[in-house]
Amino acid sequence: MVPETAPVGYPLFSRIRLATPSDVPFIHKLIHQMAVFERLTHLFSATESGLASTLFNSPPFQSFTVFLLEISRSPFPHLASSDFTPFLKTHNFDLPTEDPERLVFTSDPGNDVVVAGFVLFFPNYSTFLAKPGFYIEDIFVRDCYRRKGFGRMLLTAVAKQAVKMGYGRVEWVVLDWNMNAIKFYEQMGAQIMQEWRVCRLTGDALQAYSKVNM
Amino acid sequence: MVPETAPVGYPLFSRIRLATPSDVPFIHKLIHQMAVFERLTHLFSATESGLASTLFNSPPFQSFTVFLLEISRSPFPHLASSDFTPFLKTHNFDLPTEDPERLVFTSDPGNDVVVAGFVLFFPNYSTFLAKPGFYIEDIFVRDCYRRKGFGRMLLTAVAKQAVKMGYGRVEWVVLDWNMNAIKFYEQMGAQIMQEWRVCRLTGDALQAYSKVNM
Repeated sequence: MVPETAPVGYPLFSRIRLATPSDVPFIHKLIHQMAVFERLTHLFSATESGLASTLFNSPPFQSFTVFLLEISRSPFPHLASSDFTPFLKTHNFDLPTEDPERLVFTSDPGNDVVVAGFVLFFPNYSTFLAKPGFYIEDIFVRDCYRRKGFGRMLLTAVAKQAVKMGYGRVEWVVLDWNMNAIKFYEQMGAQIMQEWRVCRLTGDALQAYSKVNM
Repeated sequence: MVPETAPVGYPLFSRIRLATPSDVPFIHKLIHQMAVFERLTHLFSATESGLASTLFNSPPFQSFTVFLLEISRSPFPHLASSDFTPFLKTHNFDLPTEDPERLVFTSDPGNDVVVAGFVLFFPNYSTFLAKPGFYIEDIFVRDCYRRKGFGRMLLTAVAKQAVKMGYGRVEWVVLDWNMNAIKFYEQMGAQIMQEWRVCRLTGDALQAYSKVNM
């Protein structure tokens, strides 16, 4: 006789927590994978030391902030925190998840925990609202963990934090040909602002300003 | 006999300095004028107290930062500052500048100084560079001071500060039909990123996340 509460399929446990300086090697690998996915490796010049020296210099949410998505085959402990109490979720998938990069993304070997994705965000500001918001620079889930709702979890975690802090907006950008992403973001309640274009001053064009007189 | 160094036309003196909490009434009026100019007053809900409570909570450049553009018919004093030494410039225009709003924008009555514009910016982050940058939320010059190079001065001030801090980018957005602005930004060395679209989660759609479970 099978008890009614018996698990069916393949259970998996996820956690979204604040990243710490010791997570930099994982964050660096994830950013590089994102550059490969976007075919933009020619623009990628981040190093672990560059990340380590520019992230984690402010309390969480006040400046650049990283949430890490972790996955385990065992439940995570419930740990409250004054900064951010991690989100925990239990999943049940029809098929097992094979992670070919398990070894390089193991964050807690004793508990079978791997890093599966991240979101990096920071405060922005709306003068029309006279309120801060959050801008999401990157949201990324590793290939073998996609199409399982983890991207939605990461975006939801940022949106919930924004509401909690009384912020007015969460914003990010999407490539106009990425119809899957656009559809997903619209389902999440976002408007796609068709008329705005991003302007970027960088590289030599930016450096030249050191010599420009007013 | 006219000395070779005699001024011709109408001299005007400009200064770009860090805004302070006492500038909030001017900043509020400038933001409202911008909303009128963009025909977006239906999205404008900023109050002076909203601005006062959300700006000036961090040292300059670490979070939301405002540069104010001031104009005077007399030279500004040279004052060095540890945070930001103001930029001063002397102009000579063919025609006099009539400012119909002089009274409400006077910031220093004793010295005939009026507020003519502002730029609000804050740090953003590039994961590909592993470096911060600046994001310009607003750049605005009052109507009677336009087409005189003041917008260029405000943008240059932010770009110079970015280079000074070792930052990798300065970014902002422009409306795709605003060809004058696009041409100006391209002349300033910016690339217009044609493929990216801004996504925005706000209002009820954002508030709904307070009730969303993971």
